[in-house]
Amino acid sequence: MKKNSRPVVVVGGGIGGLTAALALRLRGVEVALLERADEFGEVGAGLQLAPNATRILAEWGLLDKTLQLGYEPRSIVLKDALDGAELTRQDLGEEFRARYGAPYVVIHRSDLHTILLDAAREAGVELITASEVDSVTEREPAGATITVTNGGTWEADACIAADGLTSRLRDSIVGDQPIASGYVAYRGTLPRGEDAFEDVVAWVGPGCHFVRYSLRNGEMLNQVAVFRSPRFAEGHADWGGVEELDNAFSECCDEVKHGLAHLWRDRRWPMYDRAPTQQWRRGSTLLVGDAAHPMLQYLAQGACQAIEDAATLGRALDRHDGMPTTGQWQPIFDQVVAEREPQTTLVQNSARVWGDIWHTEGLGRLLRNELMQRRDTKDFRYSDWLYGAR
Amino acid sequence: MKKNSRPVVVVGGGIGGLTAALALRLRGVEVALLERADEFGEVGAGLQLAPNATRILAEWGLLDKTLQLGYEPRSIVLKDALDGAELTRQDLGEEFRARYGAPYVVIHRSDLHTILLDAAREAGVELITASEVDSVTEREPAGATITVTNGGTWEADACIAADGLTSRLRDSIVGDQPIASGYVAYRGTLPRGEDAFEDVVAWVGPGCHFVRYSLRNGEMLNQVAVFRSPRFAEGHADWGGVEELDNAFSECCDEVKHGLAHLWRDRRWPMYDRAPTQQWRRGSTLLVGDAAHPMLQYLAQGACQAIEDAATLGRALDRHDGMPTTGQWQPIFDQVVAEREPQTTLVQNSARVWGDIWHTEGLGRLLRNELMQRRDTKDFRYSDWLYGAR
Repeated sequence: MKKNSRPVVVVGGGIGGLTAALALRLRGVEVALLERADEFGEVGAGLQLAPNATRILAEWGLLDKTLQLGYEPRSIVLKDALDGAELTRQDLGEEFRARYGAPYVVIHRSDLHTILLDAAREAGVELITASEVDSVTEREPAGATITVTNGGTWEADACIAADGLTSRLRDSIVGDQPIASGYVAYRGTLPRGEDAFEDVVAWVGPGCHFVRYSLRNGEMLNQVAVFRSPRFAEGHADWGGVEELDNAFSECCDEVKHGLAHLWRDRRWPMYDRAPTQQWRRGSTLLVGDAAHPMLQYLAQGACQAIEDAATLGRALDRHDGMPTTGQWQPIFDQVVAEREPQTTLVQNSARVWGDIWHTEGLGRLLRNELMQRRDTKDFRYSDWLYGAR
Repeated sequence: MKKNSRPVVVVGGGIGGLTAALALRLRGVEVALLERADEFGEVGAGLQLAPNATRILAEWGLLDKTLQLGYEPRSIVLKDALDGAELTRQDLGEEFRARYGAPYVVIHRSDLHTILLDAAREAGVELITASEVDSVTEREPAGATITVTNGGTWEADACIAADGLTSRLRDSIVGDQPIASGYVAYRGTLPRGEDAFEDVVAWVGPGCHFVRYSLRNGEMLNQVAVFRSPRFAEGHADWGGVEELDNAFSECCDEVKHGLAHLWRDRRWPMYDRAPTQQWRRGSTLLVGDAAHPMLQYLAQGACQAIEDAATLGRALDRHDGMPTTGQWQPIFDQVVAEREPQTTLVQNSARVWGDIWHTEGLGRLLRNELMQRRDTKDFRYSDWLYGAR
């Protein structure tokens, strides 16, 4: 059985794992990253990067590439999915960029992944595929032994678990389960139309919503349709199928209905989160990204919060005197948890409430629409807590 | 069998009947008013008169008396019944009075009734008690025969039916039924405390609300507690009893709970309205007030809308050339309906929605509180339609 040894081993080659590895490597830490798949890659479509994330990409020198491959929308617009009425909008122009020190960018998930993978490789992160982690054993007084399912172990001073929503490492640390929201997402991309689609538009409706924005410098449109599955509510194990899709949007305005024709029907994303937890660390292992704080996507913050985790880890290392020795990782990790957990808990909880606000009906819809339509579009009180500098 | 004959007979000696009779009599019409009780009087406690009503009382020369017996509150304040937080307020001072041309006054229902009864008597309205109307028969081509249960009939050119929520005359014209809201009101008055209570305060909560304001020049406090009856929801015929009262407010803030001790427990007001109708006239008979448009009390407009009916009737008569002859009342009544029905329909429907907004919980409460707390208290957009000049 092959034995390896590295100061830090990162488990998971998604956005959370790559950014954590990058943040460490940029500070001179030797890092091996284990990805269970045979190749690095991401499944998905568009992804939103708010200034709390693009500010960090800029620090890492990756914002220009992100802007090249991504798209900088003009505004975020919320519309009522039933009657199509505009509810409110957030201009993303100069005032927004100046306030938050960075732009709002939308990008194909695979493009962002490629940028991060290249950056990690160039920085010298050791990138290892086909290595599914079976378990992590904490050593006394510090350090971790990572066992890979195809044989072999890694001895590390510290382990970073970035293995996502279904994190096997979280199972052994927190022991909780993902919580099904009963909502499911369908995605799709299509070539741009005659006119550029300059905004991120979200049509919000009773038990459903639909999002559309441009990708790849405006050449491609990204669409997401999300709805509450009646079959889930009825207790069926098989829920959110394509037979429920069209029906879920049958009361919606034409613009939304037309968009439904351009969705991939062979793949769907049932949506889960977990309850917030403060248990991000066990021994020398730290959970980050979705493994630490999986959230519903209504605030479009999943990737952003993972990137913030990595930046916080980097700053904690900056405050440390010299390269950490085996026993010194635990207090560094505790600083990360102390700094991050209150915010990610707020984001997780707010994402649920924000989803409820999007999907409300009847009187709730009336109140929501009135509140949003009365909102001063120059009022940043609902975004400062999320996008503002920390 | 005694036979009487008058140009106009008004059925019902409440606020709607007295004001309709007064408006006609002030224009020289000979009017007999039939009240079924042995004495004129009103059961109840406080009642709110918004400027759309006090403006009319001023025209009739009754505002000074109303202010003498009533109380002019400083503001209307909405608070959350659970945590007691202030949600929004409407200042009723100079700017408000100037905008709507009249003050906001709260008054004991019996005091307003006395003012109107005295005014009708002084104006020469023939006031007849112990006359319960059994039926009204329309004559061809015009005129009505009003039959009283204790014998006797009245021949009239026109009949005005102001017999309230349970209007027997509406039964024969519209044929609909009162709709139980499942909510019940308890009322009570108590002597003022050490400090003057200067505002109308409504605490709004999940399935309940509580209102408090001063009466009789501030010497007395008026309280109303309204709640959704669980027994009604369960289908019991007997609902809204005192055993449900305390439980309905058990989650409320202390200020509300303390108020519950000062309610009359031997009398309750189950709350009803009816669906709006355009059928206010049959032959020479016109429905007015609650007989035409009974509403839930959430906008505090029941008396106000009845008073507006009377004023509209008066203006329609002003436009008529000379005293109407028998056949000329029907087009006058149709003008009243055309002018009033769209507004009273809006008030009836809005009262229901406003009640839903008061009584919402969970996400709806969150959105309502946010909307109200963000409201510019100098913004009159929610009251212009109701209090503004017509």
